[in-house]
Amino acid sequence: MVKYNLYRAEDLRNFMVRFFTKLNVSSEDAAIAADVLLSADLRGVESHGIIRLNTYYGSRLKKGLIDPKSPITIINETLTTLALDGGNGLGQVVSKHGMLSCIEKAKANGVSMVTVRNSNHYGIAGYYAMMALEHDMIGISFTNSQPLVAPTYGSAPIIGTNPIAVAVPAKDQRPYVLDMATSIVPIGKVTVYDKAGKDIPAGWGINKLGEVTESPSEVLYGGALMPLGGIDMMAGYKGYGLSLMVDIFSGVLSGAAFGASVGHPSDPKAGSNVGHFFAAVRIDAFRPVEEFKAAMDEYILQLKNSPKAVGHDRIYIHGEKEFERSERYLSEGVPLLGSVASGLNDIGMEVGVPFDCELVKEVMREPLGG
Amino acid sequence: MVKYNLYRAEDLRNFMVRFFTKLNVSSEDAAIAADVLLSADLRGVESHGIIRLNTYYGSRLKKGLIDPKSPITIINETLTTLALDGGNGLGQVVSKHGMLSCIEKAKANGVSMVTVRNSNHYGIAGYYAMMALEHDMIGISFTNSQPLVAPTYGSAPIIGTNPIAVAVPAKDQRPYVLDMATSIVPIGKVTVYDKAGKDIPAGWGINKLGEVTESPSEVLYGGALMPLGGIDMMAGYKGYGLSLMVDIFSGVLSGAAFGASVGHPSDPKAGSNVGHFFAAVRIDAFRPVEEFKAAMDEYILQLKNSPKAVGHDRIYIHGEKEFERSERYLSEGVPLLGSVASGLNDIGMEVGVPFDCELVKEVMREPLGG
Repeated sequence: MVKYNLYRAEDLRNFMVRFFTKLNVSSEDAAIAADVLLSADLRGVESHGIIRLNTYYGSRLKKGLIDPKSPITIINETLTTLALDGGNGLGQVVSKHGMLSCIEKAKANGVSMVTVRNSNHYGIAGYYAMMALEHDMIGISFTNSQPLVAPTYGSAPIIGTNPIAVAVPAKDQRPYVLDMATSIVPIGKVTVYDKAGKDIPAGWGINKLGEVTESPSEVLYGGALMPLGGIDMMAGYKGYGLSLMVDIFSGVLSGAAFGASVGHPSDPKAGSNVGHFFAAVRIDAFRPVEEFKAAMDEYILQLKNSPKAVGHDRIYIHGEKEFERSERYLSEGVPLLGSVASGLNDIGMEVGVPFDCELVKEVMREPLGG
Repeated sequence: MVKYNLYRAEDLRNFMVRFFTKLNVSSEDAAIAADVLLSADLRGVESHGIIRLNTYYGSRLKKGLIDPKSPITIINETLTTLALDGGNGLGQVVSKHGMLSCIEKAKANGVSMVTVRNSNHYGIAGYYAMMALEHDMIGISFTNSQPLVAPTYGSAPIIGTNPIAVAVPAKDQRPYVLDMATSIVPIGKVTVYDKAGKDIPAGWGINKLGEVTESPSEVLYGGALMPLGGIDMMAGYKGYGLSLMVDIFSGVLSGAAFGASVGHPSDPKAGSNVGHFFAAVRIDAFRPVEEFKAAMDEYILQLKNSPKAVGHDRIYIHGEKEFERSERYLSEGVPLLGSVASGLNDIGMEVGVPFDCELVKEVMREPLGG
């Protein structure tokens, strides 16, 4: 059990906006970046939220490794496609604009796809996919990441944890929101086990020889994560293939870095040239929206009402836990690890933006590790 | 080791064309269906090839459960989208036409997506994705299938093995062709273990209580396959999410059956209302094709030249083994299990189309089980 501090979502957002603007980000762009980071904490993806405010963004803005102006340029454009250059700005800014354009193009022409090169860490993939929901569209969002995963039969990290996010609206049921890394676990989860001195389950990662190891430190220092599926016998080459697919769309099609060349989001010396991919699909181009949404509800209920495995009483749809968490955190407060909160105090002091969010409550609980 | 008979690809194709035309399929449509089935055998996906000629197609054509005319109608059409009704015809016929239209629309407008409802088993997903390659496009193909996989925390098969196929051209390297079921293994692999009296690896499937079992018969009779990833700890909910995603595009968006309602391809009494989804992406809408292909080559070589795990000397790219197998089979002959060849003789006799393919050679080898 660890200590969490609860803060109001609005207070955290305002702090982040002030932090970004102090580092020469426009107030519009600061609001975008803050909103994406906050959405990660609200959904319980702690590893992609405010905890990264300084390491992934602030420290690099200060050094000029991310351009605070986020100057976006158009490389190629058709009625249905757009290839953007993020100008080494904030990943969230070019991604929000990219997905908005994607939705506009899909609205006018049925479907649309947008690529982004020369960008940085964009936060949670699901944020952009979910932007399509209110337009009665299916939204898709991919990004590549620094190399952490070994290909099947390999021993070195060459590909990223490259997430796939897909958001689909339903009628009375909550939307389906898949937002998954293509590795079995994020690297942060291995770090948590390492710090706790615990073994990891066999299959999450390999050592420097490419052998499955239960030692988290062997994975972290010289080893690699395994792709979804794990070893060959359990079809890990499928996870490897999905990770590669995400990078082909995000890195190769966009003209960004790919594979082992993608920079680390907290690299203190160089830009990362991350690439993203977005798509939007207008549902009514295929069938009436109400018919589609009713069928989604029927499918969701079919799954939820199907027989449960021994020891389980509920089947979840993707995104469901995150929607419930989000609603709870918006009313009760957003929990930040005590150590994260004190870190925010330090980085705020450093740039002259005090972390003056009012503490709503302190609670003890298990970390989510997400 | 089992006996395989080798036949010339062209001879097998001709036999299948004669078989289909005898069952009132037009010669054009028969050629399409035969080509898709042959491509599975050439690529080594035995479970989706000529072995299914009667069970999935012939027996159902004879009973009127598949319409030999494959009457295709348009439900909805825009410049970039097309929603088709397959008229309960051959899945291969409407899918080939659907993907051709998809490619034409992408050629004219950058990207395109096509759905199909009211169809039947379409063979291997990769066939249609690969049609995009010669047009310098990325091709995507999904289909749903009869329920075989349990959702995470469930105990009953509600979703299909719903495959994802993505084909991407390279320059001097072979194309990347991902063609994967979203379950860990196909059901046929469990049947092979069952017949051989062998245990399956823990994690492939569950028994009727939803518990992981090493008994193939418990999986086959009352149990279910597990989605890619397997148990929760190994992120099986991601495979479940991908399977659901494929069905949302193939079944829900198209207006076909979905989830537990998708019919079995060898059901002797009813149509299956399978749904498919196709997409094509014009690479030059995003960046020059030659630049893209050179980057693909660079990525492929980066992966292949990366450090190998102990006991391995080669890293594969998706589709590579299948391309090599295909080339070998085209020159040496296509291997069919001895029992499959004699089965073809029987079904040929029954409809008056003798299986008169010349036996090139007999070999003994392990079954691929794919």
